[in-house]
Amino acid sequence: MSAELLIAHAKQLVTLAGPARPRTGEEMRTLGIIEDGAALVRDVEIIASGPTSEIEPMADARALRIDARNKVVMPGFVDAHTHPVFTGTREDEYEMRSAGLTYQEIAQRGGGILSTVRKTRRATEEELFEMALPRVRWMLEHGTTTIEAKSGYGLTVEDELKILRVIRRLDRETPLELVPTFLGAHEIPDEYRGSPRSIGSREDYIKLVIEEMLPRVASERLAEYADIFCESHVFTVEEARSVLERAKSLGLGIRFHADQLSCGGGAHLAAELEASTADHLEWTDEEGIESLRRAAVMPVLLPGAVFNLGLTRYAPARAMIEAGLAVVLATDFNPGSSPTPSMQMILSIACAQMRMTPAEAVTAATINAAYSLNRGARLGSLEAGKQADIVIFDAADYRQIPYLFGINHASVVIKSGRIVVDRRAGPHSVTESQIQ
Amino acid sequence: MSAELLIAHAKQLVTLAGPARPRTGEEMRTLGIIEDGAALVRDVEIIASGPTSEIEPMADARALRIDARNKVVMPGFVDAHTHPVFTGTREDEYEMRSAGLTYQEIAQRGGGILSTVRKTRRATEEELFEMALPRVRWMLEHGTTTIEAKSGYGLTVEDELKILRVIRRLDRETPLELVPTFLGAHEIPDEYRGSPRSIGSREDYIKLVIEEMLPRVASERLAEYADIFCESHVFTVEEARSVLERAKSLGLGIRFHADQLSCGGGAHLAAELEASTADHLEWTDEEGIESLRRAAVMPVLLPGAVFNLGLTRYAPARAMIEAGLAVVLATDFNPGSSPTPSMQMILSIACAQMRMTPAEAVTAATINAAYSLNRGARLGSLEAGKQADIVIFDAADYRQIPYLFGINHASVVIKSGRIVVDRRAGPHSVTESQIQ
Repeated sequence: MSAELLIAHAKQLVTLAGPARPRTGEEMRTLGIIEDGAALVRDVEIIASGPTSEIEPMADARALRIDARNKVVMPGFVDAHTHPVFTGTREDEYEMRSAGLTYQEIAQRGGGILSTVRKTRRATEEELFEMALPRVRWMLEHGTTTIEAKSGYGLTVEDELKILRVIRRLDRETPLELVPTFLGAHEIPDEYRGSPRSIGSREDYIKLVIEEMLPRVASERLAEYADIFCESHVFTVEEARSVLERAKSLGLGIRFHADQLSCGGGAHLAAELEASTADHLEWTDEEGIESLRRAAVMPVLLPGAVFNLGLTRYAPARAMIEAGLAVVLATDFNPGSSPTPSMQMILSIACAQMRMTPAEAVTAATINAAYSLNRGARLGSLEAGKQADIVIFDAADYRQIPYLFGINHASVVIKSGRIVVDRRAGPHSVTESQIQ
Repeated sequence: MSAELLIAHAKQLVTLAGPARPRTGEEMRTLGIIEDGAALVRDVEIIASGPTSEIEPMADARALRIDARNKVVMPGFVDAHTHPVFTGTREDEYEMRSAGLTYQEIAQRGGGILSTVRKTRRATEEELFEMALPRVRWMLEHGTTTIEAKSGYGLTVEDELKILRVIRRLDRETPLELVPTFLGAHEIPDEYRGSPRSIGSREDYIKLVIEEMLPRVASERLAEYADIFCESHVFTVEEARSVLERAKSLGLGIRFHADQLSCGGGAHLAAELEASTADHLEWTDEEGIESLRRAAVMPVLLPGAVFNLGLTRYAPARAMIEAGLAVVLATDFNPGSSPTPSMQMILSIACAQMRMTPAEAVTAATINAAYSLNRGARLGSLEAGKQADIVIFDAADYRQIPYLFGINHASVVIKSGRIVVDRRAGPHSVTESQIQ
């Protein structure tokens, strides 16, 4: 017998119903909101959504019912750019930045990505899995039901595969859905940097990525996408092209870090390779935007990193939306530049600092993000036939989610038709008598 | 029989122990952290804090015990600048700002503070109390145990008194401690703005504040402090001086909005009047800082408003700390410019964007904030004799509280010795069987 779940009387059922493709321009401001709305779920799927008066009579008498009066109901957030598998937090570097050091200076002093790599290499698969679990819980608790997850803190064949296996295990053993991306070209590891103890040159490392890592990742089906950190002090455009072309020839999709700290031609390369996404793009100029538009590359904007690094130059979101790009927002969750697991926080930064409207930000964080991960047909909206990934927010208007910032509005989180987080009871407060 | 509570084995007991005065310079970076620390509480008071090995033997056998292993224990946040009593949220204006309108332009179109005033006047005392309750809950849940709370959305004698009575009732009937501030000079209300339906001029309104409101507030003991919005488009320095001098003569303390949107001499006026605090100060220059230093005025910095209004000019926190000012951080919680109830969020903005160190931010949000409210002898540190306002954070290092941003790290909140929030059980997740 199949299980039914009816969510009824939502103040706003934010359906994101619309064309079956990424949303651009005015479409990004069209959320398909139904007042007093309802969604009917059977097993893992939404079988109907619309006004409560129409949907409620369709429900089985034994359906589990959730009254969403005075609540906003939306699709679960899809976080299209995260680095969730690593060892060790980096609050020491956070403190160093407040003392005036830049992200690049900290990297030059042995901090940054490579400090996480050194620790992550020493951890077992089991340890990495255990450490990632609270991060998965944070994401779910804040309304994220699907994430893209990158490797990139291993930088040896075995350590990269280890991280990708942890990502696969998190996908199978937790309610969160993870889309794996191979990021072996996240940085040049210590042992390929020309020190006396080097085992090779930077060219040797790139060769390792192309000739050993990528084929292993592809043959073991451990990733759907390949990524590279294309930036002047990391990998050049030429290096990125050779890595990504190889990835493409092996059947992997392409999404990569471009133009984060300087305008280095990353956007153009993304267009040339017809990448699914180009990520960051803080320094992308008008020509870059035009290249992305022509090739229909989706920009994944990561304002959490800009905010947290103490910078003020955000990606030109308004120019991108006006140019007709299907903008995506993501957390960039990682222990260095952007340690937030909350898409709600990202919406707040996007609206306050990038001048995205709340509606554009919601579109960028749900349906567009789903399309950027090739899952737009299954995720990202509350329409019949879609997977039942649904969040009930303790808010009377969807705009309050970014507006009342720094707090978690998610009350109930449903993944594939199953309630996986339920905060309706609130925190437990004991009475005075209990401590006497 | 007296009740005892023992919090033991804290990874970091952040005591803020130190001189019995506001902390400046290097003192702001000295948190008095005890590893494997404990605090013993009897009734409403901390009777001892120190290493667990010393404190634990002092506890009564029947004491309630909380194991704080792997947790950070700190004094409750003191939020020294909030506007928590009002009707109606303003997400519509939030959306307008993302469409490019400035805060001032929205005010000129009938939005801003006066739109909240119009709605708040129509509400009863009971309604305002009920609407403020979830805000109080948010604050407590995020680790704030004391707030300063302003009137200022009434702007008639009766409506201002109504708000101050709500503040008094919140103080008496919820676990949160509220310090009331009279802000009758928050804006010039509609009926004194020279329209055909005006009942008076702006001078008449200022006269009303000085001759009727202030004496009523003082005689009914409804406020400890008086405030005014001193800013070119609101109240001039001369108007502020006359209002604040009257307040002072009536025995009220002085803390006021200065130099938020332009450098208008607010800091100098604060020094001249020997105000307890000058708040905002985004545009204060070196001379202003020097005036504040000489008069020992404490700057209350409100980076939430800067962030949320999409601005990038924060108050010069580093210059203030280097000049020896006892900096305070606060949320500025209000429905327009800064709708966040979370001091943790404010710490994150202060560290990332203002380059305060995590230690300076913690000092600014606890002991210094307590001194700014004349409560430094009772609140703001975990020392014997202090009131037991204590927060247990789900973090292994206090720096993680601002670093892992956009989420709530507070796990247990204790006010006056009583557990008022307990999130240790986490959100309740139902099992699959419950929806079948």
